[in-house]
Amino acid sequence: MLVKLTLEYDGTNFCGWQLQPSEPTIQGTLERALTTVLRETVRLRAAGRTDAGVHARGQVAVFRATRTPELGSLSRSVNALAGPDISVVGAELVPEGFDPRRSARSRLYAYYMLNRRAPSPLWRKRAWHVSYPLDVGAMGEAAALLIGEHDFSSFRDANCDATNPVRRGIRSDVSRDGDVIVYNIETTAFLRHMVRTIVGTLVAVGSGSLSVERFHEILLARDRTRAGVTAPAHGLYLMAVRY
Amino acid sequence: MLVKLTLEYDGTNFCGWQLQPSEPTIQGTLERALTTVLRETVRLRAAGRTDAGVHARGQVAVFRATRTPELGSLSRSVNALAGPDISVVGAELVPEGFDPRRSARSRLYAYYMLNRRAPSPLWRKRAWHVSYPLDVGAMGEAAALLIGEHDFSSFRDANCDATNPVRRGIRSDVSRDGDVIVYNIETTAFLRHMVRTIVGTLVAVGSGSLSVERFHEILLARDRTRAGVTAPAHGLYLMAVRY
Repeated sequence: MLVKLTLEYDGTNFCGWQLQPSEPTIQGTLERALTTVLRETVRLRAAGRTDAGVHARGQVAVFRATRTPELGSLSRSVNALAGPDISVVGAELVPEGFDPRRSARSRLYAYYMLNRRAPSPLWRKRAWHVSYPLDVGAMGEAAALLIGEHDFSSFRDANCDATNPVRRGIRSDVSRDGDVIVYNIETTAFLRHMVRTIVGTLVAVGSGSLSVERFHEILLARDRTRAGVTAPAHGLYLMAVRY
Repeated sequence: MLVKLTLEYDGTNFCGWQLQPSEPTIQGTLERALTTVLRETVRLRAAGRTDAGVHARGQVAVFRATRTPELGSLSRSVNALAGPDISVVGAELVPEGFDPRRSARSRLYAYYMLNRRAPSPLWRKRAWHVSYPLDVGAMGEAAALLIGEHDFSSFRDANCDATNPVRRGIRSDVSRDGDVIVYNIETTAFLRHMVRTIVGTLVAVGSGSLSVERFHEILLARDRTRAGVTAPAHGLYLMAVRY
């Protein structure tokens, strides 16, 4: 049967989700723990392969097991073995044919920015420190332009290999709570470095170096060289995958 | 002249605020950085000596300097030297006679609890993980009993050396946001381990093992042996000191 895990992790100490021969990865750490607990070789498939340093509050991964595990004790055992940076927060059986990637209707990411002069020890590795003032109103105006169906070619990495760059923006908004700015974006699926490229460009809008109109032109241009910098990985969180 | 610093720190890697001969402390780290920057021996006096593992968003400390430093560049230099776990978030000159401890009208502490079954990598070292269900309504009822003037002897450490255990509770409330429960307490001053002992006893109320009436009896008993466990240090934050 297929088992669906919901996962939280602190991505700081990992080279991303995807298995690598000699680097610590989330997939590798979890597969090793699951293989030990279930006494059979376990392969995980995730909803999205997060990059090095990216965090998750609601990553989803699926594996096949030959016997039905007791899900409560499975979670506790894996949490004991996988170390403090990864936590199984939910486990359930899913029907044959469930695919964490293809069955997903949408993904929600959040990107955190700390917007003040002084660095923050408590937000270090958890938010991008932007020390110059940001206009959240202008950022929100630009962000709202991404709602609806768009070709996101301007906001994808040069190495992105997706054949179709069209995605539907379901949610795209910016809010501020004191020194912390959060950008929430939900779309049907994501291109490589898409959220981080959008955030880098939104920060240019917030700082006043790019107008909302220019942001819109960049979206329409479908040309990555027009967009802003790629924001650092450590502000990004995969919040939820919806099925 | 006297310089007042407002400080944020992640207490995880320190043996508390107070200078110790061979252990890393926040006071020691900052005094070393300030002495280097100002080229004179600097001694800091803090509003409250936080314990090992306790965090701060608004600790206040004062030092005397023979020359008036440029406060912006002082903050930047200290932040560069003190390492990523400590940040000077504000610096200002204060009049002679200002004492960070005696001049304070009140202190605000927050205590964070993660209340769910699975542990959280992102709240690790930042919140007390309480895995059984907690009734926030009952906790809030008990917390409200601490508002006003009370003898807090039941909620002080056996080694507390304050002569007068009477404090005035200005704020004492509990709120929940999803899995995270926050207890906020503001009083005129705090006794040793006071917040952590209150939180340990509030959690007993939240779990149902102690009634609100029994909590009230414990407060009135003025006897530390009646109260609950001391909650762990890593959920505690010194949020602000008011003058």
